[in-house]
Amino acid sequence: MATEEGAAVSVDDIAYDALLEWVADEVAPYVGEGRVADYIPALANVPPDRFGMALATVDGHLYGVGDFQERFSLQSISKVFTLALVMAGDAGALRGRVGVEPSGNAFNSLIQLEYERGIPRNPFINAGALVVTDILQTQTGDAAGAVLDFLRAESGDHTVTIDGAVAASEGEHGDLNLALAHFMAAYGNIENPVDLTAEHYFRHCSIAMSCAETAMAALFLARHGVRTDGTRLLPVLGAKRVNALMMTCGAYDAAGDFAFRVGLPGKSGVGGGIVAVVPGRAALCVWSPALDPHGNSVAGVEALDRFSAATGWSVF
Amino acid sequence: MATEEGAAVSVDDIAYDALLEWVADEVAPYVGEGRVADYIPALANVPPDRFGMALATVDGHLYGVGDFQERFSLQSISKVFTLALVMAGDAGALRGRVGVEPSGNAFNSLIQLEYERGIPRNPFINAGALVVTDILQTQTGDAAGAVLDFLRAESGDHTVTIDGAVAASEGEHGDLNLALAHFMAAYGNIENPVDLTAEHYFRHCSIAMSCAETAMAALFLARHGVRTDGTRLLPVLGAKRVNALMMTCGAYDAAGDFAFRVGLPGKSGVGGGIVAVVPGRAALCVWSPALDPHGNSVAGVEALDRFSAATGWSVF
Amino acid sequence: MATEEGAAVSVDDIAYDALLEWVADEVAPYVGEGRVADYIPALANVPPDRFGMALATVDGHLYGVGDFQERFSLQSISKVFTLALVMAGDAGALRGRVGVEPSGNAFNSLIQLEYERGIPRNPFINAGALVVTDILQTQTGDAAGAVLDFLRAESGDHTVTIDGAVAASEGEHGDLNLALAHFMAAYGNIENPVDLTAEHYFRHCSIAMSCAETAMAALFLARHGVRTDGTRLLPVLGAKRVNALMMTCGAYDAAGDFAFRVGLPGKSGVGGGIVAVVPGRAALCVWSPALDPHGNSVAGVEALDRFSAATGWSVF
Amino acid sequence: MATEEGAAVSVDDIAYDALLEWVADEVAPYVGEGRVADYIPALANVPPDRFGMALATVDGHLYGVGDFQERFSLQSISKVFTLALVMAGDAGALRGRVGVEPSGNAFNSLIQLEYERGIPRNPFINAGALVVTDILQTQTGDAAGAVLDFLRAESGDHTVTIDGAVAASEGEHGDLNLALAHFMAAYGNIENPVDLTAEHYFRHCSIAMSCAETAMAALFLARHGVRTDGTRLLPVLGAKRVNALMMTCGAYDAAGDFAFRVGLPGKSGVGGGIVAVVPGRAALCVWSPALDPHGNSVAGVEALDRFSAATGWSVF
Repeated sequence: MATEEGAAVSVDDIAYDALLEWVADEVAPYVGEGRVADYIPALANVPPDRFGMALATVDGHLYGVGDFQERFSLQSISKVFTLALVMAGDAGALRGRVGVEPSGNAFNSLIQLEYERGIPRNPFINAGALVVTDILQTQTGDAAGAVLDFLRAESGDHTVTIDGAVAASEGEHGDLNLALAHFMAAYGNIENPVDLTAEHYFRHCSIAMSCAETAMAALFLARHGVRTDGTRLLPVLGAKRVNALMMTCGAYDAAGDFAFRVGLPGKSGVGGGIVAVVPGRAALCVWSPALDPHGNSVAGVEALDRFSAATGWSVF
Repeated sequence: MATEEGAAVSVDDIAYDALLEWVADEVAPYVGEGRVADYIPALANVPPDRFGMALATVDGHLYGVGDFQERFSLQSISKVFTLALVMAGDAGALRGRVGVEPSGNAFNSLIQLEYERGIPRNPFINAGALVVTDILQTQTGDAAGAVLDFLRAESGDHTVTIDGAVAASEGEHGDLNLALAHFMAAYGNIENPVDLTAEHYFRHCSIAMSCAETAMAALFLARHGVRTDGTRLLPVLGAKRVNALMMTCGAYDAAGDFAFRVGLPGKSGVGGGIVAVVPGRAALCVWSPALDPHGNSVAGVEALDRFSAATGWSVF
Repeated sequence: MATEEGAAVSVDDIAYDALLEWVADEVAPYVGEGRVADYIPALANVPPDRFGMALATVDGHLYGVGDFQERFSLQSISKVFTLALVMAGDAGALRGRVGVEPSGNAFNSLIQLEYERGIPRNPFINAGALVVTDILQTQTGDAAGAVLDFLRAESGDHTVTIDGAVAASEGEHGDLNLALAHFMAAYGNIENPVDLTAEHYFRHCSIAMSCAETAMAALFLARHGVRTDGTRLLPVLGAKRVNALMMTCGAYDAAGDFAFRVGLPGKSGVGGGIVAVVPGRAALCVWSPALDPHGNSVAGVEALDRFSAATGWSVF
Repeated sequence: MATEEGAAVSVDDIAYDALLEWVADEVAPYVGEGRVADYIPALANVPPDRFGMALATVDGHLYGVGDFQERFSLQSISKVFTLALVMAGDAGALRGRVGVEPSGNAFNSLIQLEYERGIPRNPFINAGALVVTDILQTQTGDAAGAVLDFLRAESGDHTVTIDGAVAASEGEHGDLNLALAHFMAAYGNIENPVDLTAEHYFRHCSIAMSCAETAMAALFLARHGVRTDGTRLLPVLGAKRVNALMMTCGAYDAAGDFAFRVGLPGKSGVGGGIVAVVPGRAALCVWSPALDPHGNSVAGVEALDRFSAATGWSVF
């Protein structure tokens, strides 16, 4: 992590609330820039002018600004939690079924999958997340339920739930994901019925949480694997691996740019949320629904860029 | 960076020399495993049983084990220094000419280049490094010389030089790189004569240095941009960006695996060397000539993996 | 068509039966060479030692050799008839939905489909045939039934039917085709429910016919569009177009080699059959179940090659 | 070939001159539509309003319309003659070095070449023609000279020559072809020095001929391999193979559409020329400089389409 020599101020000396206010002011011109995801009707109606950001520290404090308590659709952010649960269940579960390399293609691409005979490049592209969901389904018998239980526990809010309208809409417009799943099934890389795995995938992607809840739920990655209740979900090495995957593959085909600008492990979702981890220190979540062409929140990336630059909090 | 809670020992309590000895013992079975690069005759003759590792700390100490003072061919490791020099000359020099995304393809692939009309995906694949060399040639009039001068100054050894036999061999077997360069020239992305840019590329790739010299030369990236003499080569943000690129793109098409296992920004070369940066703390260089199928030193990756696990030194 | 100056004998002077006997003798060593299709269990059990060949002339004569009256699974050969029926119903039906270019990829590839946003390269790769089936389903309400009716009428045998075991097996192992269909549905290029279109596709591919019946059924393409009963299915231009597509796209990704060797419009199926058209003169069907790696019958291609060379019957 | 039952008139009953006049009138609205090739300055200045068409019959008659005696740059049309000469020298010369399949990609693409390790898909894409030129250079010691000699002899005009300005311009803007050649050299598929092979390629592409001369030069393909002087250049089987390659690969990545519409073996060039063969009967050449996005003359394709439809002269 950059020492404070490069940062304008020492973070420890400032009030986090003021810092978040400053970030919100700075990125206000970007809020609404871009395009709200419209591949399913249920997402297309989210107002583009929302912006929220939350910071949860490893010592238990929570700070927020703007719409940080408004719930949004996690979408691909849920892939981080699904992955962590699978690795907690079996550290070697991905071996031979999902790779750990950046894909270089769009998140929903089939091309690499064909060249590599049904083995997705990493767990954060859709194909990879479908396989991870399939493994979790086999491990638990209720993949979406397992993700939901974990998120409720870590966020401390048992009203967190799956948005049924979004889940239904995903299913109705799920041809691309069904294509991915059937393709992998043809290569023997989906072990449950395709429709069942796809349904659980659609459901955990449709979980709605606020920035505050999401930042708290991601804290175990800042704590090197330790959950809110002090128990360990993942060994240090496991948490390191999830963080590494977020760094190299977390922002779709703009992961390099995200690392370049923000310098923190992060994962974005087309609901407009982005979660980021400051190892040993904190977890962040920012939300603003309008997306750039890669599927990342425009104002969200700007906010994390500024936050990272202002604090010197980057892993590099 | 991981706090020591996950590491077996506190690094500050141990002697670095003993640590390096332990790593060397651990990876001894891997030395010679894999294949020495043989695409040019001058590299094919390097004995596969070599292993060296050096650690240079930001406070000026140097530690080494094995063949850490034997010089080897930098090959792609030189791309890090070429990039840093270009960014020092003009922070925006890459804009529109080289991307910052992992490629997902082999280092010498032309495929992505064609889809993206002559713009290489990142500065560490061959195509990208050719463009960076082309920019440095325009900036300095002597790209290879500029890299050499920098490496001599940072390593503190003015006998560092270009291995003429390797450079000549590169030129004689340079068809693939000439194909890349002509392809980009067709899209206007090489501004000097193709043969001139290629020659400077072959020459800086042919610089020979030891692990000790290379670790010292990379220390400016651990010092957030500050050179050995205390002057600043890059702003904090620039050093962060070079480190980020090493993390997401530094190990060819196994960059994800390297991040997953080692968790440090690193750059490998087909000469068998790998340089890695522990931001704020140290630079490492390991060398062992036998390579895995991706072009990374087998024993080198094992050594960094063990070092990172033992010290808890990872950015995640 | 080559005049007889290049052929060893004038076809008109010889007995076709003797010619077919000679071809069968010549290719006997190739029968059984290759691999019987085993992607579905129902096909894997076909004995590899079968060989049959039939010649149907435009003036109504039928000649055969070997197992020319044994029925086999049409598989992709049915795509020719499906296409002809769709074009008979609406000459412009393919416009904007299926291309007419060779694909350069395997018959079941998704890659081109992604680059070209759900528009298959031609009607003879699986993706294209699924779209053609989808159009025929919309035109007739019973795509597989329409193909079956046509084949019964042209072959003159009303016992021709769909092999239910093969059709069921296709459905059970249909993940790859379902992936293609869902992918195109995501781009709006499948208008009926995906499962319905896929079912009709599986069913018409599972029609079983003999060489004799298939050659007779293809005669309308040799008669420039005129059916057995003298009515016209397609205008001259339409028949030319189907023949052109068979020439450039009929033998999977070995269409160039088939044109190079045989020089006749042809269409192969993984059941081991190949139908070929000698415009103005005759239709041929050859069957032998063992396939080369492209999916074409080894003995079948050899037989057509020899027949074409011996008669000088080639369009070139 | 279609019997006359589908054609509006019997060709034998009409005057060819009148037919060509009719075609020229029909396509007049298309002349100038599209874009003159501008990748080299020497071609960019050709006036787009030219149109010429010539018909040479196997019995020695020549008919023409419009600018059929004006010379234009053969460009890729020269690939047909280069291929025929190489096959005349050694029927097996292409084996292992060039395929016979349509590429499905643009004529100057490198993508397929990389997947297939330096073996071009067919002799008519640039990469394939470079290999064919390389073989002819080895066979003759003067590839461009050999092509020129052949064209002078067949056209009967010894003033046919290489346009030096075009050849020089090709060389100056030859980066893409040099990229292809260096890439194949890296895989050992160019045996002469890259620059020498490229130069001969640029030179034979720069031969200038009229429609009349080109149609006469292509007559050996209509005569199943027999040259103007009655000697045989290729066996019947060899001529069939060249025609087959023209049919499946002759019109860049629009070969399927050309077969679909025109139904004759043909080869186009970015100089705006297209040569077509009516086996056993005639050779045609049409020229109009403005091109469609695939690189085929817009008015040229229209003219051949109309000619084929009006005469029923198609191989299907």
